Amino acid sequence: MAEPSSKKQRTQPPYELLYHPGVPGRGEPIRLLLEAAGVPYTDTANQEKNGYETVQKICMNKALKSDDGNPPVFSPPALRVPGAGKDGKALVISQTPNILSYLGDRTGMAGEEGSEQEKYWVAQLALTALDLANEVHDSHHPIAVAKYYEEQKEESKGKSKDIREHRFPKFFSYFQRTLQGNKERGGAEGKYMVGKQLTYADTTIWQVLDGCMFAFPKEMEARKEEFPDLLQGFYGSVKSEKGLKEYLASDRRLEYSMGIFRHYPELDRQ
Amino acid sequence: MAEPSSKKQRTQPPYELLYHPGVPGRGEPIRLLLEAAGVPYTDTANQEKNGYETVQKICMNKALKSDDGNPPVFSPPALRVPGAGKDGKALVISQTPNILSYLGDRTGMAGEEGSEQEKYWVAQLALTALDLANEVHDSHHPIAVAKYYEEQKEESKGKSKDIREHRFPKFFSYFQRTLQGNKERGGAEGKYMVGKQLTYADTTIWQVLDGCMFAFPKEMEARKEEFPDLLQGFYGSVKSEKGLKEYLASDRRLEYSMGIFRHYPELDRQ
Repeated sequence: MAEPSSKKQRTQPPYELLYHPGVPGRGEPIRLLLEAAGVPYTDTANQEKNGYETVQKICMNKALKSDDGNPPVFSPPALRVPGAGKDGKALVISQTPNILSYLGDRTGMAGEEGSEQEKYWVAQLALTALDLANEVHDSHHPIAVAKYYEEQKEESKGKSKDIREHRFPKFFSYFQRTLQGNKERGGAEGKYMVGKQLTYADTTIWQVLDGCMFAFPKEMEARKEEFPDLLQGFYGSVKSEKGLKEYLASDRRLEYSMGIFRHYPELDRQ
Repeated sequence: MAEPSSKKQRTQPPYELLYHPGVPGRGEPIRLLLEAAGVPYTDTANQEKNGYETVQKICMNKALKSDDGNPPVFSPPALRVPGAGKDGKALVISQTPNILSYLGDRTGMAGEEGSEQEKYWVAQLALTALDLANEVHDSHHPIAVAKYYEEQKEESKGKSKDIREHRFPKFFSYFQRTLQGNKERGGAEGKYMVGKQLTYADTTIWQVLDGCMFAFPKEMEARKEEFPDLLQGFYGSVKSEKGLKEYLASDRRLEYSMGIFRHYPELDRQ
């Protein structure tokens, strides 16, 4: 659990992240937002006794509601906020971009306070980074999410080749141009995607880039010279941000394994 | 362009939808929201002279900004709102869920006015429907988005089988349980996903179901008895809603063709 930073003194509710234990996965952009904001939270499955039972009870069932009268959850992650629901009960919301939007508004991580423009620019960037994460997931599961990789290995090679050769340059060009455009407008010397402060656009894009570096190390190394502002400057400066630097060095930061980002050498650049 | 409905008399800015011409595609959930809300808008590529040039200039280029100092757009659709940007310029935002969220807050289509809970429940449902739309897109393009279907036809058969047999029941069960849970709480007799009024969760889910019925008519017909509240009750009642009924009968409603939803008989239930 992160210590509250000095810049964020107002009382925060005890946010509960409900996600699978042991993997960064789709929970990681949410963790990065909270850690960078210095907002305390509970990572229920990883920190609470029988925490994964709670996650399963709320997020992985066939009921008509999730908990405390909230609508059902399609799949983890979900965010549970005691006291924020109807009639003072807990609020439960799901979908990573939706949780980021909710927390961004409440932690100062969605751009300059009161700027409606920055808020929506931040959201569009995070959504696009999460689209890339979905494509990378499909690099090892292009045919059926519930089947083993080994059953779709040949198709994975074709899908990965397309992602590496065509999708990576399209996404990276977009992120780098956003960064350069913000710098031109006077936004923080190329350190941030939107405005003059760290937002969840930065942390979410950073996480997806980091995952790509784990999954496709040769491809990403080869792309570094092509996208230096993004893959060198931005990538390096975000990981040194207050809150993130400490988090990434802590044991709360989970290792990649068999989740969205997987390292299969045969799918990388040969 | 829709006539403003009597319930929505406050002045609306002249919203401009920037998208490819001639296909419903990713622009359609945005059109349905605006039509159901009775809010006037310009569908630039379909209604303006040289409109697609404007779309290409703002949304499909390699510049560091899109227009009027806004960040670049990854790909259409985008929403342009004259006067809503910084220094009174136009605001340009992108990503379908982000545009729906922006418009939902401003047109009464994001749930009960002032309800933070309903707003985030509406967003999570629309995001999940759009995830399903992405999976359906991949049913005919599982390997490479820029290659022809014919080049990935065999892989498409495997992907479509998985979507029809495993993904459809998972998504439809979730949407139907949400509907039933809302009815239990007294929400509008099973007509709406969230609360007591039409929201963009309803219109977005409806659009994706309608697209699935075009793409996989045999599969969807066979599923009707399994998910009657969703595929019969809800599907039928949403298309009769004021604003939508008139829109769906108008020539503004574009026909499905070679977009996200495509009908290839060999991919349907045999």
